[in-house]
Amino acid sequence: MVGAGTEYLYNLLVQLLGRDRMYGLEDPGYSKAERIYTLSGARCLSLPVDEGGIPLEELEPSGCQVLHISPNHQFPTGAVTPISRRQGMLRWAERETGRYIIEDDYDSEFRFTGRPIPTLQSIDRADKVLYVNTFSRTLAPSLRIGYLVLPRTLLKDYESRLGFYSSTVPAIEQYTLALFLEEGHFERHLNRMRVFYRNRRDQVIAAIGRSPLAGRCRVMGEEAGLHFLLQLDTSLEDARLEEAARKKGIRLSFLTQYERVPGRAGAHTLVVSYPGLDGERLEAGLETLAKLLVK
Amino acid sequence: MVGAGTEYLYNLLVQLLGRDRMYGLEDPGYSKAERIYTLSGARCLSLPVDEGGIPLEELEPSGCQVLHISPNHQFPTGAVTPISRRQGMLRWAERETGRYIIEDDYDSEFRFTGRPIPTLQSIDRADKVLYVNTFSRTLAPSLRIGYLVLPRTLLKDYESRLGFYSSTVPAIEQYTLALFLEEGHFERHLNRMRVFYRNRRDQVIAAIGRSPLAGRCRVMGEEAGLHFLLQLDTSLEDARLEEAARKKGIRLSFLTQYERVPGRAGAHTLVVSYPGLDGERLEAGLETLAKLLVK
Repeated sequence: MVGAGTEYLYNLLVQLLGRDRMYGLEDPGYSKAERIYTLSGARCLSLPVDEGGIPLEELEPSGCQVLHISPNHQFPTGAVTPISRRQGMLRWAERETGRYIIEDDYDSEFRFTGRPIPTLQSIDRADKVLYVNTFSRTLAPSLRIGYLVLPRTLLKDYESRLGFYSSTVPAIEQYTLALFLEEGHFERHLNRMRVFYRNRRDQVIAAIGRSPLAGRCRVMGEEAGLHFLLQLDTSLEDARLEEAARKKGIRLSFLTQYERVPGRAGAHTLVVSYPGLDGERLEAGLETLAKLLVK
Repeated sequence: MVGAGTEYLYNLLVQLLGRDRMYGLEDPGYSKAERIYTLSGARCLSLPVDEGGIPLEELEPSGCQVLHISPNHQFPTGAVTPISRRQGMLRWAERETGRYIIEDDYDSEFRFTGRPIPTLQSIDRADKVLYVNTFSRTLAPSLRIGYLVLPRTLLKDYESRLGFYSSTVPAIEQYTLALFLEEGHFERHLNRMRVFYRNRRDQVIAAIGRSPLAGRCRVMGEEAGLHFLLQLDTSLEDARLEEAARKKGIRLSFLTQYERVPGRAGAHTLVVSYPGLDGERLEAGLETLAKLLVK
């Protein structure tokens, strides 16, 4: 199913799976999904995330029926769910009818080290996984093209109840994108962008290593995706540091800003979206930040 | 608000106005709106339509809170709501907080005779009317651009609760359309299409007048829009005539196919979408149809 962005597709997912089910989401996580599920009338609960995503033992007691996860690159922690936990998640879904997993594969295309682990969708044998992805990150956000891959049994249900919907993506964009994929341009573009982003990431991490912040911070989750985490060696509260930096013209994004339940996200940890960072302004910013940490 | 088609906007309307309200729709009417409201979790009821739209005396006892209507060209009856009834509808909405009117202006641009009556939106003084329209009919369905004009008070609510949504329309289409409007091309295009469609309509009506159907049918609702009604002088049931015609390769669309409550739409009345009809195939079709009526 092709749709005008994943946000639109989230709306359709609730119409397909039902608003009477409990949706479980990652905490810290991508808050738009929860907002949209809630606006669509579904109930949501948030589940904690460790370095491998949502721990299996959280699933059964939570009472959730639809699990919305990003096992290939969790936002914002960057956690990658190991294969054994993926299999455990599938078993959890298989244990009861009406349980489903929405695999939101946002930002999974840019993996710089290590082999990619098979998607849940590719190892699902029981029609339990709904796969969602977008071309916003890999091509351009202004394109507004996302897609949804449904298991066969749900596809039938979709067609009979929601099949009347007109496509939300203009025909000309669909034809252009189809050609772009068919002729191999997308793969080539991804490879080029992977090199570009890896270089940019290396430059930003090197700049941190040369800056007065060096030795007082730790880079994490830099193996994939267009952001990494920067844990700061400080006792300053996130909100106070954020405010102090804002006064100096630096906008900081903290892991804690993405948490629903207080304490679920590590404190003193920046979410660094590196594609836009370069050159002198970065160096000046790092110096300013280092000074703020000393105070 | 610009969105990827009116269907998408109907989804947003329920999120904005709430799924706990009762939505009243025209019967016979455009069934997709009701399907989408229902899928979005709202309750719907259907209200009868006469030659001026939904009669005022139906509103209060129905218990509906949100009225979804097309006062400028009702689909499929072609009814146009007179100004006095429009004012009555606005008074109904003003009588209670939480009452709203969704003015769906689909297919209103092609008016061939008579002066257009002011839209409800333009005479609304109490922030009660939400105006919806699309460029599907006037430019191309494959464009996927619809829009929603909210009253100021609802716009605030929209921005605070739904403002986080990304636009569903690609940037390039929005810029192109904006230029097309700004430079007057849209007005010129509409004028050209109005002449084109009026000629086409006249040709189709003339062909009916020359055919063996002449004198055994009545053209209605031809003043506006891209379809008219053709009341047939027959006692054959619609379903039987439709089946007999289908066997001869003619697809007929009856007014009764758009009714929710049996008896609300006049029987023996075809909904004729004329833009695609021309030439010899039309003449042959009219002859076949006339023969079927005799049987």
